[in-house]
Amino acid sequence: MPEQFNSCIEACYACAAACDRCAACCLQEEDLAMMRQCIRLDIQCANICRLSAQFISLDSEFARQLCNLCAELCEKCGNECAKHQAEHCQLCAKACHRCAQECRSMASAAGV
Amino acid sequence: MPEQFNSCIEACYACAAACDRCAACCLQEEDLAMMRQCIRLDIQCANICRLSAQFISLDSEFARQLCNLCAELCEKCGNECAKHQAEHCQLCAKACHRCAQECRSMASAAGV
Amino acid sequence: MPEQFNSCIEACYACAAACDRCAACCLQEEDLAMMRQCIRLDIQCANICRLSAQFISLDSEFARQLCNLCAELCEKCGNECAKHQAEHCQLCAKACHRCAQECRSMASAAGV
Amino acid sequence: MPEQFNSCIEACYACAAACDRCAACCLQEEDLAMMRQCIRLDIQCANICRLSAQFISLDSEFARQLCNLCAELCEKCGNECAKHQAEHCQLCAKACHRCAQECRSMASAAGV
Repeated sequence: MPEQFNSCIEACYACAAACDRCAACCLQEEDLAMMRQCIRLDIQCANICRLSAQFISLDSEFARQLCNLCAELCEKCGNECAKHQAEHCQLCAKACHRCAQECRSMASAAGV
Repeated sequence: MPEQFNSCIEACYACAAACDRCAACCLQEEDLAMMRQCIRLDIQCANICRLSAQFISLDSEFARQLCNLCAELCEKCGNECAKHQAEHCQLCAKACHRCAQECRSMASAAGV
Repeated sequence: MPEQFNSCIEACYACAAACDRCAACCLQEEDLAMMRQCIRLDIQCANICRLSAQFISLDSEFARQLCNLCAELCEKCGNECAKHQAEHCQLCAKACHRCAQECRSMASAAGV
Repeated sequence: MPEQFNSCIEACYACAAACDRCAACCLQEEDLAMMRQCIRLDIQCANICRLSAQFISLDSEFARQLCNLCAELCEKCGNECAKHQAEHCQLCAKACHRCAQECRSMASAAGV
């Protein structure tokens, strides 16, 4: 029942938007060198979040496994973003950590 | 400034979720033959909506053109869905028409 | 070194193309009801293949785990397609099984 | 008939792979500041190429319009990459220009 996972879908897309935004803003930062890892992870995280949301909406039998992997990536990306003071990084860290939590709870839900 | 386009990003992702959901539900309908065109358009619409949202978030100089094309596809998909009584089709039609409108207004906004 | 995985990237994109094509052709089959599961899996498989190829190209530390999941989905999709006589299904089954094999060998390669 | 467009599909995916690779390698360059625009365009180009390939495979009535836009982005990305001496940039420039050409010829083909 994808309806019970609407908050996870919503968190995935919010995280994708925050990661895209963070990558674009990082690329305009003066001290770009420090942002390498952040940009790398933002690109990956945005795309796995979009696929996870799609798999939940499609009621895929692979949604749980994908969401588990998505949660790992979100956590890594969120931890990297959290190190930087820029507002786009702080917002992204928050969106990533929320998405990681939603994905974990989705992946462990009964009766999917 | 992507921030002024948050409602467009949000409409794109809501439309993608509704289209994915509609395609999955159509594939379980008893009268499947009638749903061919609906499923075809749902698949395309979900994916162009996700790319449009990404391009807006990235502040891409191609976001307007992509959103214009997205609006066309959303409109076609929404019109097809509107013909069917199933709840997933009616919800999808609504999400498509809202997204078409947001994408058009995004594409014609000044100073992007 | 993504270069050593060029054949995996190529197999992922070939599989995505075969799945998209198969889904589109299935939607035009006269006996559509029999194709429900095939279409469902084609849609999912095409999209996880594209993300796997992207993660390998990006040299992502999550590429192996994603490729493992991709291999599972490819195998399930290929087995379903193999049941149907239509040429698009037979071609898709072949592309899926080849991609599953490439993804497994990528995931178990040393020194990634 | 998507079969007549196999070379365009193949060029789109080859371009996506080259752009992803170029972005990842740019992010490891010592003189990162000079690569800002290259990375920005690589990210966008890889993703529109994947969607264009998908739309052609799906035999979408929107494939031509999307391929036209894809050609524009490929050209811009290829021109930017061509300015840099790194091998990944030179390879990417070549893949982008080839894809632009294939997309233009696809978009202007009769009887799609």
